[in-house]
Amino acid sequence: MPSRKDFANAIRVLSMDAVEKAKSGHPGAPMGMANIAEALWRGPLRHNPANPHWPDRDRFVLSNGHGSMLIYALLHLTGYAVSMDDIRDFRQMGSRTPGHPEYGITPGVETTTGPLGQGIATAVGMAMAERMLATGFNRDGFPVVDHHTYVFLGDGCMMEGISHEACSLAGTLGLGKLIAFYDDNGISIDGEVKGWFADDTPARFEAYGWHVVRDVDGHDAAALDAALAAARAQTGKPSLICCKTCIGSGAPNKCGSHDCHGSPLGEAEIAAAREAMNWPHPPFEIPADIYAAWDCRDKGAKDEAAWREMFEGYRKAYPDLAAAFERRMSGELPANWEAEVEACIAATDSAAEKLATRVASRNALNGIAPLLPELVGGSADLTGSVGTWHKGSVRLTPDNWDANYISYGVREFAMGAIMNGLTLHGGFIPYAGTFLIFSDYAKNAIRLSALMGIRVVWVLTHDSIGVGEDGPTHQPVEQLGGLRLIPNVSVWRPCDTVETVAAWKSAIECATGPTCISLTRQGVPHIARTAEQRAAIGRGGYILRDCAGKPEAIIMATGSEVQLAVEAAAELEKRGRRVRVVSMPSSSVFDRQDAAYRESVLPSDVRVRVAVEAAASDAWWKYVGLDGKVVGMTGFGESAPGGVLFKHFGFTVDNVVDTVTSLL
Amino acid sequence: MPSRKDFANAIRVLSMDAVEKAKSGHPGAPMGMANIAEALWRGPLRHNPANPHWPDRDRFVLSNGHGSMLIYALLHLTGYAVSMDDIRDFRQMGSRTPGHPEYGITPGVETTTGPLGQGIATAVGMAMAERMLATGFNRDGFPVVDHHTYVFLGDGCMMEGISHEACSLAGTLGLGKLIAFYDDNGISIDGEVKGWFADDTPARFEAYGWHVVRDVDGHDAAALDAALAAARAQTGKPSLICCKTCIGSGAPNKCGSHDCHGSPLGEAEIAAAREAMNWPHPPFEIPADIYAAWDCRDKGAKDEAAWREMFEGYRKAYPDLAAAFERRMSGELPANWEAEVEACIAATDSAAEKLATRVASRNALNGIAPLLPELVGGSADLTGSVGTWHKGSVRLTPDNWDANYISYGVREFAMGAIMNGLTLHGGFIPYAGTFLIFSDYAKNAIRLSALMGIRVVWVLTHDSIGVGEDGPTHQPVEQLGGLRLIPNVSVWRPCDTVETVAAWKSAIECATGPTCISLTRQGVPHIARTAEQRAAIGRGGYILRDCAGKPEAIIMATGSEVQLAVEAAAELEKRGRRVRVVSMPSSSVFDRQDAAYRESVLPSDVRVRVAVEAAASDAWWKYVGLDGKVVGMTGFGESAPGGVLFKHFGFTVDNVVDTVTSLL
Repeated sequence: MPSRKDFANAIRVLSMDAVEKAKSGHPGAPMGMANIAEALWRGPLRHNPANPHWPDRDRFVLSNGHGSMLIYALLHLTGYAVSMDDIRDFRQMGSRTPGHPEYGITPGVETTTGPLGQGIATAVGMAMAERMLATGFNRDGFPVVDHHTYVFLGDGCMMEGISHEACSLAGTLGLGKLIAFYDDNGISIDGEVKGWFADDTPARFEAYGWHVVRDVDGHDAAALDAALAAARAQTGKPSLICCKTCIGSGAPNKCGSHDCHGSPLGEAEIAAAREAMNWPHPPFEIPADIYAAWDCRDKGAKDEAAWREMFEGYRKAYPDLAAAFERRMSGELPANWEAEVEACIAATDSAAEKLATRVASRNALNGIAPLLPELVGGSADLTGSVGTWHKGSVRLTPDNWDANYISYGVREFAMGAIMNGLTLHGGFIPYAGTFLIFSDYAKNAIRLSALMGIRVVWVLTHDSIGVGEDGPTHQPVEQLGGLRLIPNVSVWRPCDTVETVAAWKSAIECATGPTCISLTRQGVPHIARTAEQRAAIGRGGYILRDCAGKPEAIIMATGSEVQLAVEAAAELEKRGRRVRVVSMPSSSVFDRQDAAYRESVLPSDVRVRVAVEAAASDAWWKYVGLDGKVVGMTGFGESAPGGVLFKHFGFTVDNVVDTVTSLL
Repeated sequence: MPSRKDFANAIRVLSMDAVEKAKSGHPGAPMGMANIAEALWRGPLRHNPANPHWPDRDRFVLSNGHGSMLIYALLHLTGYAVSMDDIRDFRQMGSRTPGHPEYGITPGVETTTGPLGQGIATAVGMAMAERMLATGFNRDGFPVVDHHTYVFLGDGCMMEGISHEACSLAGTLGLGKLIAFYDDNGISIDGEVKGWFADDTPARFEAYGWHVVRDVDGHDAAALDAALAAARAQTGKPSLICCKTCIGSGAPNKCGSHDCHGSPLGEAEIAAAREAMNWPHPPFEIPADIYAAWDCRDKGAKDEAAWREMFEGYRKAYPDLAAAFERRMSGELPANWEAEVEACIAATDSAAEKLATRVASRNALNGIAPLLPELVGGSADLTGSVGTWHKGSVRLTPDNWDANYISYGVREFAMGAIMNGLTLHGGFIPYAGTFLIFSDYAKNAIRLSALMGIRVVWVLTHDSIGVGEDGPTHQPVEQLGGLRLIPNVSVWRPCDTVETVAAWKSAIECATGPTCISLTRQGVPHIARTAEQRAAIGRGGYILRDCAGKPEAIIMATGSEVQLAVEAAAELEKRGRRVRVVSMPSSSVFDRQDAAYRESVLPSDVRVRVAVEAAASDAWWKYVGLDGKVVGMTGFGESAPGGVLFKHFGFTVDNVVDTVTSLL
């Protein structure tokens, strides 16, 4: 009769064998956390291997994502569609078992992890989603949303700053259904952590307001059960279970050393480990009784069936709520979305207001938020400046979860990862704002949204030297180009109120990746458009002002510089020149249009091309070519009023006219 | 007889009046911290207004940089070259008083701050520099390096993750001469912080191993004096002095509200503040007795003179140490540098080894580190992988400061800011390594190095899909292009051992900005060069292989793809084509060359141009134009062996040949 130790050892051997076969990977963490995983996954974790999308499943996040074999072993053993062949294929091209866990690749992987610290922050977002949904949808007798979020994390996550940001917020908010296991093995890649990481981590988390279960033997199943029970009993605070473990536990010689962190153990040590674990079975074979003990398919199916039965009762009692819940969890937009948002664009055009686009964005939110109860907003402590608060915003507080606005605090990176968690959980479209410059702090979280292909909206204001007096630390230069470089990110920089609503439309409709909307601090005029031009905004780039006949020159511009392009073209026309103006609010989206459309906007034989954007110029050479010019920034900004800076750096009609003329 | 309250009020009125005149700025923090500033700057702070570069001055960092008027007021009042006209010019074009404190603009400003959290981390670097220098240079009776580092920080810094990273490390290292004042005013831009930031901050810092002085009344001079004395007495741990303050203290109606954080107080409130503070003097006038009480010029001159006298004694006793100290603090390289590094490049060329460039970089370090005692290395917990440990490396530990290698832990962002602090302090050239992908985490610290124009070297390895099995979370795609977009950053991506040493040479010699060296995980062949070509590496881009006569096509490449370009050119030559290969290890440096040189490498009339780089392709259109092509990445990588991925994504000789052929 196999013991719980044997069940955990099944994880250990799968991990060490798969890493060995791949000749690369990280056996240390899966082996070290095997008992913890056994206690959770054969214990209270509520999930259904046959349906990784069951809305009320517990969420599990492996924040120390390099230990990917841990989760693959768990998914395989409990009955997900992760076969032994998949395990054998660990880290190979096109496999379901990539080097780090990847959302969308492996059934049961809730989020992509690997970049340390982001998993725990994403899990905070999932736990927040759970609580907001529960508050909004649960009714007496119908706890349709009622699950835990569990996280594994290691020393690396604990050292990363984002763990502070996210866990501080989680503590403030009292996320009682968030339970994290800290793999306190005292080892990181450079060796024993005590030389560079001597935090009293339990005290640190208590300072955040967490419930901490201290000094748990991470290899003692009974101790882990007790710790889990204590954590689940504490419903007013998130729990951190601090587990002392031995990295690579099971490997008799390499255990406890950083040697087993990120390299195969080697044949000899693997043989010794089999011996030490009393595991006589060959690689990639698990005895039937051990499989049986792990198999969660029956229990999972029953759990989900019970929930579905409850949900059908809920549907009868609250049909509208049930429909809304299902729609939101599916990610579908409401049926009236298209018509209403188009009406909003048309109304904005009619109003023809001169506004900063950050204000236009707030107005757009006022227009669209009533249509989208799934919108959950927020800001990294810049609410008033970035215009993320709309008329229907209700601030989430520790005591009020019937809310749709998160004060993230000055925590841009955690904000990004939490937004990822909100989307991954389902039921929400998160948006949040900060200054464009501080997207730097959150960059890798935006990248992970893009890699996962999930919908998140960034409201990034104060988007150029137009920031003015705050100076170069606050004036983005390279940020726009940098965001555009990330694959699968849609970057928008609208030029007026109309393009701003269109950018929001595109952002909301883009369910396969994040959108960054770059917005001015300063006022910009409304630009008149035909209905056809208005419709073309959604293509990312379009002809905003054309000339009679074939253009001699094309001026392309974005955001606050479009007006300069329009005025320069008018001046050049007076001088008898044929000049086309292309507004390019989203080169990301324009690049996805078919070649014929792109050619119609930027005919290849028109080589006198000038791009105007108050940002690093490099991105624009792609469109202007070796014969064109860019009116852009070549260095950092300065501290002075915005208008002074625009002149100083050459963002004037005269300079655009001269630049075009120099090429004609 | 004016009181200490009046001295503090001088800061308050200068701050509120300057913000009012500029019609922009942040009066809240300077007014709230005025008493703290008075206690420190009229108390133990040791500095000489006439010489902001005195090596042994105390360092002062305003981490909450939006409170810039606080430091400008202090510099003005104590006698620095910051005149009342400069104060009047607050936030205007070309002034000495920009919106946020900027290094290099204002005498006495030790570092650029504003992006929250980075000031405290930079200060940690300064305090580490002090202790390493003191350990290396001080001798009995000659404490030539013996100063404190003081920091002011607010709630914003406390919320940012980097404060965790840096303060955790500072606690581990026991930086006893680092003293931080926490402006605990309970207010951030969105309002009262308790809704999103409820940390027990004193407990958090105690968990880091800090000495915490709790519950200090930040408006009580005697309490502040006592707290400072307690902090200075604790020499084994960094100290955090937690000061309860009222934001905007002195403004009778707006004090305590976020309304005074980032906007002028307005005429009425300013009048009321003058009344409340009993300050009858007009704007920009300080009574003589208050000036006299603040003036630190005499004391500063005496302090520095005493130090200089001591240093002259030191010079007599230890002439070599004194000379080394002066050279290092000046930032000058040793006299033998040029000859020795050139010899190292030549020897590397002769050895002609096939190595991963990350290994070549380690070998380069072994060559140059003996020349440069000012080199201080480190890694964010990836020492073995990134090759930052050289034969002379000695690990810094809490007990050993006679060291030149910092284990930063998994803290990339703090590592960047700490490196900035090491450079700003003087005496060091810091370098540190992580994977290129994780430069994302540190991006804004790299930006600040660039903005400040200071020498910092980043060793960024695993620089493409060549990473292999770790997969897309660990494979950089947009990072190279992103770093190149930051003004004043020199990005190098060497193709072999020789270019790697040349990149190091350039990095060390670039005293006016940071350098990022991007290095492969996988082996790359050595490429034969003439002496002239070897010398041309330093120009960033050069002809590595040419054809007879005018080229029909140019292939440009960097790093691991240069070999593909060379082989493709050879194949095309076989087919009768005239193809030039340009190795472009640093487009940043190439762009700084004169037009004639650039034209000689990339003649404008050769329009068949193909760039090859296993990274986001956008950056290369600048060089290949509308008629060229880029063999680059258009999306994220995959998890598979590196060789498999190179083929999968088209980084093969055949594909390069076909791409060139398609254009001919």
